[in-house]
Amino acid sequence: MDEIKLIEIKESILTDNDIAAEQLRSRLKAEKTFVVNLMSSPGAGKTTLLLQTLAALKQTYKTGVIEADIDSMVDAEKIRAAGIESVQLRTGGFCHLDSNMVKQGLEALGSEGFDLVFIENVGNLVCPAEFDTGAITNVMILSVPEGDDKPLKYPLMFSTCDVLVINKTDMLSLSDFNMNTLYGHISRLNPNMNIFEVSAKTGDGVKQWADWLKQQVSDFLQ
Amino acid sequence: MDEIKLIEIKESILTDNDIAAEQLRSRLKAEKTFVVNLMSSPGAGKTTLLLQTLAALKQTYKTGVIEADIDSMVDAEKIRAAGIESVQLRTGGFCHLDSNMVKQGLEALGSEGFDLVFIENVGNLVCPAEFDTGAITNVMILSVPEGDDKPLKYPLMFSTCDVLVINKTDMLSLSDFNMNTLYGHISRLNPNMNIFEVSAKTGDGVKQWADWLKQQVSDFLQ
Repeated sequence: MDEIKLIEIKESILTDNDIAAEQLRSRLKAEKTFVVNLMSSPGAGKTTLLLQTLAALKQTYKTGVIEADIDSMVDAEKIRAAGIESVQLRTGGFCHLDSNMVKQGLEALGSEGFDLVFIENVGNLVCPAEFDTGAITNVMILSVPEGDDKPLKYPLMFSTCDVLVINKTDMLSLSDFNMNTLYGHISRLNPNMNIFEVSAKTGDGVKQWADWLKQQVSDFLQ
Repeated sequence: MDEIKLIEIKESILTDNDIAAEQLRSRLKAEKTFVVNLMSSPGAGKTTLLLQTLAALKQTYKTGVIEADIDSMVDAEKIRAAGIESVQLRTGGFCHLDSNMVKQGLEALGSEGFDLVFIENVGNLVCPAEFDTGAITNVMILSVPEGDDKPLKYPLMFSTCDVLVINKTDMLSLSDFNMNTLYGHISRLNPNMNIFEVSAKTGDGVKQWADWLKQQVSDFLQ
């Protein structure tokens, strides 16, 4: 593999991100590239979960990763070390990705040959929820130490995502996180949300999430 | 105490937030109101640490709290339940506070009579670092489960804050967080940063942080 590509993001003249995102999604459907947009707080374990997910899926699908960060390449380097092609979007001050940035990432990756591409969005529960990236599915990762009240504080994120992965379940014993409280909040905000409970560190529950995703990609590629 | 005040934030026509922030800071110095801007990721424990800090300081200083959230009042209600005057800034989509929003919060609180006012900024490591709120001191809370690599990813936050409170040290045993790695990153980004290690949950280390803050306020009020 070549050197990790680094794309410095410039603000695009966005007349309408929603339209551009829909166009990108149509193109991805035509090209049969399933794009997963992963969003979470800083430190919720996106990269660790992604590495575990890649390990479970990379034999089945040609997979790539678009990493986004304000100002570092650590995550792309970890992904690359695991033998997965990745590009790094360095967003400068931007706290989110929009569909134009994702398009730049896909072009740098050369996405036409890929079955499955993960976007690791900027660690932030606010702005990324406001910008449609054009992805096929939106996944939010909430880690146990963040608390069960997060849907009350970041309702847009919880209501726009198709999937919630609750990570760091190995920390439940040290936490006052109440799973029933969380499920209650979500049933009000987004009753159709698919929820998985995992510990990316111990591997607990990762198989269920990876199997579900594998099925989604398989259906999409039909 | 009256009902908790809720201020719906409208985008201000910001010609220059930096100038407005400096003016606000000058006014706060003249009025002898020490304003602390607390910033962190979602779920790093800002409110829990704040409650512990308030318990340690409220006998000495007349203290108030400005809470900021996208769309909830849970934090202001917790602060109010602890007997501390608080106002809630509901920021709508905004992922940060600027000095104009803080000014609105101080006015709603009636800050002229307060010695010490805490701002609990929006849970986010990106945008809040970019906007000077006019506060006297900027404090970042990093929780152990977020990981020791955060200074690499959010350098602006770590370099603009005067203080770092490392929270959830009770979770060190379950984590691969390396304190030396973190201190190494910080010594490069912000060698003068004041660092405290606490567990707001168990109370461990909170006294050192609260004593330090008490001294800062005392010096300021001279």
